[in-house]
Amino acid sequence: MSSATPPSLTVAAVVFPGFELLDLFGPYELLWIAGAQFQIEVVAEQLGPITSAQGATVLANAAFSDAIPYDVLLVPGGRGTRREVENPALLDWLRRNEPTASYVTSVCTGSALLARAGLLDGRRATSNKLAFDWVVTQGPHVHWVREARWVEEGKFFTSSGVSAGMDMTLALIERIHGADTRATAARRAEYTWNSDSTHDPFARVAGS
Amino acid sequence: MSSATPPSLTVAAVVFPGFELLDLFGPYELLWIAGAQFQIEVVAEQLGPITSAQGATVLANAAFSDAIPYDVLLVPGGRGTRREVENPALLDWLRRNEPTASYVTSVCTGSALLARAGLLDGRRATSNKLAFDWVVTQGPHVHWVREARWVEEGKFFTSSGVSAGMDMTLALIERIHGADTRATAARRAEYTWNSDSTHDPFARVAGS
Repeated sequence: MSSATPPSLTVAAVVFPGFELLDLFGPYELLWIAGAQFQIEVVAEQLGPITSAQGATVLANAAFSDAIPYDVLLVPGGRGTRREVENPALLDWLRRNEPTASYVTSVCTGSALLARAGLLDGRRATSNKLAFDWVVTQGPHVHWVREARWVEEGKFFTSSGVSAGMDMTLALIERIHGADTRATAARRAEYTWNSDSTHDPFARVAGS
Repeated sequence: MSSATPPSLTVAAVVFPGFELLDLFGPYELLWIAGAQFQIEVVAEQLGPITSAQGATVLANAAFSDAIPYDVLLVPGGRGTRREVENPALLDWLRRNEPTASYVTSVCTGSALLARAGLLDGRRATSNKLAFDWVVTQGPHVHWVREARWVEEGKFFTSSGVSAGMDMTLALIERIHGADTRATAARRAEYTWNSDSTHDPFARVAGS
């Protein structure tokens, strides 16, 4: 990192019943370990316990009604997205918060939520390979990219399934704070970055 | 997977204040997504909220006093291990549960906890590369392996830092359920397995 202290950015780590654990906590860990002063809040429709698709329960410490502006939105996927695409509270929160966010990110089927909120219309985006056909139906005006580890378009970063969120997050860290901070985050997490966003070995085996 | 239903195994995902998020939830996700019927409980000294080193809070749904036997113990690291190596409640729980567990696993500085409980004496083990020198002091009778992604010795699986826990977990899944189930877990999580436990690109850059 440079000697100048980078600005602190606030991150909304969005949760809902049935969110995918690693979609959220892979990116969360890497943002934290970068040492770049991301201030991360777990945000849900209401404060309190939210149970993931995997069974572990986290506590939301901020609610949609708090109306706090965030610099980065992080939207995970998980089986709960099937219900949340019909949840006006979540979709309205995304629409209200997108204009003031510097970066809007999703992992896995989280892109279905961004799509249903209309935020990806006319943009390139990707998603989980095993759920791709369902995700496409949630955003008929999105330019879906079937073969990509992640897709960057302007301030939007959408990634493929589950662990692809970590690779996307390292790209986000590099965009914001440069390659040195990205390398520091990966080294501290002992994570070998899949740095080529177009290399997607999972696109062609999805049906198997 | 074979057509026979594999046996369901119970997993204790141990948490304490200051545990490392990805150490726990990377392995947790992969065990879940394998579809191999792992029953995972978040276990702590007491029921209720436990805040990670990264700030996110999880709920423990089992307590040390429950005296439930588990088939797999999963012990994460994190800055909280500096205090937990002095916590007799945690060390006693590990000593009580090791004999009946079929597999005892740790990620990152979680191996310092296994070492302080005496469970690794005379055994080969590894840990996080940035904290390696401290971890070694917690187990003078352990054969510490400085360069390894993870180390298997009998029922003990210890891994290097943070994301190395996911590679170790895939090796554990393969040991228990075979290569097909391990491949299914990795594919569903869109995770490229670092399959060589002896390849450790982070061992030599730890001081940087």
